[in-house]
Amino acid sequence: MSIQQIRKPYLIFVGDIEDPRNAKTGFGLRDWARQDCLGQLRYNDGERAVDLGLPVFSLEEAALAGARTLVIGISPPGGQLPAHWYPTLIAALEAGLDVASGLHQRLQDIPNIVRQAARLGRTLHDVRHCNTTFSVGTGLARQGRRLLTVGTDCAVGKKYTALAIANALAKRGHRADFRATGQTGILISGRGVAIDAVVADFISGAAEALSPANDPHHWDIIEGQGSLFHPAFAGVTLGLVHGSQPSAMVLCHDWGRQNLLALPHVAIVSLERAIEGYLAAARLTSPQARFIGLSLNTSALSAAKANEVLKDTAERFHLPCVDPIRGGVEALIDGLEHFE
Amino acid sequence: MSIQQIRKPYLIFVGDIEDPRNAKTGFGLRDWARQDCLGQLRYNDGERAVDLGLPVFSLEEAALAGARTLVIGISPPGGQLPAHWYPTLIAALEAGLDVASGLHQRLQDIPNIVRQAARLGRTLHDVRHCNTTFSVGTGLARQGRRLLTVGTDCAVGKKYTALAIANALAKRGHRADFRATGQTGILISGRGVAIDAVVADFISGAAEALSPANDPHHWDIIEGQGSLFHPAFAGVTLGLVHGSQPSAMVLCHDWGRQNLLALPHVAIVSLERAIEGYLAAARLTSPQARFIGLSLNTSALSAAKANEVLKDTAERFHLPCVDPIRGGVEALIDGLEHFE
Repeated sequence: MSIQQIRKPYLIFVGDIEDPRNAKTGFGLRDWARQDCLGQLRYNDGERAVDLGLPVFSLEEAALAGARTLVIGISPPGGQLPAHWYPTLIAALEAGLDVASGLHQRLQDIPNIVRQAARLGRTLHDVRHCNTTFSVGTGLARQGRRLLTVGTDCAVGKKYTALAIANALAKRGHRADFRATGQTGILISGRGVAIDAVVADFISGAAEALSPANDPHHWDIIEGQGSLFHPAFAGVTLGLVHGSQPSAMVLCHDWGRQNLLALPHVAIVSLERAIEGYLAAARLTSPQARFIGLSLNTSALSAAKANEVLKDTAERFHLPCVDPIRGGVEALIDGLEHFE
Repeated sequence: MSIQQIRKPYLIFVGDIEDPRNAKTGFGLRDWARQDCLGQLRYNDGERAVDLGLPVFSLEEAALAGARTLVIGISPPGGQLPAHWYPTLIAALEAGLDVASGLHQRLQDIPNIVRQAARLGRTLHDVRHCNTTFSVGTGLARQGRRLLTVGTDCAVGKKYTALAIANALAKRGHRADFRATGQTGILISGRGVAIDAVVADFISGAAEALSPANDPHHWDIIEGQGSLFHPAFAGVTLGLVHGSQPSAMVLCHDWGRQNLLALPHVAIVSLERAIEGYLAAARLTSPQARFIGLSLNTSALSAAKANEVLKDTAERFHLPCVDPIRGGVEALIDGLEHFE
């Protein structure tokens, strides 16, 4: 029932990937965990490989400088690890580093890498998968404050919003932990649970384990997943809501989106119905749960139009409404600072 | 993405279990799949071992008589298979039978049994677990009628009600299939998916695969799991509701129960709120979904009081209300026969 822990600092492996869109994990780590990223490891340095703008290290240099884990920062098309990268991973193990991957293909399924890791006493992290066993959820009240970001769809800013809130709280001197539930979040945080990868019976139990009892004023800022109104993933979302027992929720929504990203035949739920549904779900285990704000992705709009939408939405729901990319999340933090 | 299929007829293995409460699987198979149960295999026949009242066979006799699968009909305390039963399982494989188990411990985790099954070309079924991979749910409308039993808690009669409805429909000449989502149901039906054992991302996809498109008037009667209002298992329930795309639902409830069986600190949801919640959830993928009745366990009441409760509840919700143990499910079937 322990949550996996990835040792930092990281050396980010970029390999020979040329399209920056296939290096989102690397860029995400650079943006959200800069202090944990010692540098990058590229093939063909100075040539066409993606450049994260981090110091360039060889494996040996990185090990000497204190790197503890080689993180695969790229997602090749198909999610498979090219075989010509294997020797680099084995060399990393030999240099003293663990290896972490967010790819579909498991490091644990590559016999030679498993063998070398066992021989050298290193750890392989397949953060998209879940080898941990959890207890079933209890629904028992626990101490501490928890904020869960929830959404009207996948990929609407739930991770971004949670990270921004956790950082902003820390910057104002509050004790807050980001709790990761997806592979990129786990790599950023160095710990977490790929909640959609646990066995269905244990979704809420895993969420309970991820955000355990804490000091009364401590905030866990939990990364949401999926949507209660998504025909494929709502079960994951509901278990996460129940297990998280959120004191507070933030609703995330992409203003330009009319239909679900992966299921274009399904219309996006209205914000009113989303709020109503999430409150009803959350209050099963957290009777005082409430929304403290909304986080909109307004990238489809002009700056003027975006401001108007944020203002209108705030008035419509009597809640602060932000676009974290345009203006940060400070308006949400005020509410959390005086949360009762 | 195929659903596992267990070959019938069965020989039910009772071993040397003495307490009938530890042989629920065997009794369930006898009661619900009598035509598929060739007989029973007991240690110490005539002595203290549980007697299912089925013809007694040796492995060799059963194989000669056409048995295809030895089903472990008992649940020893702890859910582990006693080591002194292993030789019987291996002898069954040698006699030409597959072996099916609904225990927590997996046959697949017992090396010698796995080895013998592979050598002899037999199949091992761990019906409480799920080795199949599924696609994620699509939410796309599909042909055919589907009824899902849903509940206010675990163990309120969802399997029993679904089996009774499927049997009653068949008896009236309608085409109907029972779709099993739990281990006992899978053994009874010979196929199904242990829905709480699939990886969380695939709950609704597995439910879609379990009840695929069918003729417009064909009924799939789907065994429900858990409850939308259960802090541990609601995610499983919601994914099953979405993936099943039910045309019709039956709400199952134990009249005597005030709190959740496994979580006595959680009150049972009201029938009104349950109906409202299940309808809201189901209509995401099945806009016409509606309740066609209620199924109550009134075993805590006298016959007179039970009749009164059934009558009052039927009036309260303007829906047929049955206790399937006391009076069968015929009152529900009338509504299904004229379902539009």
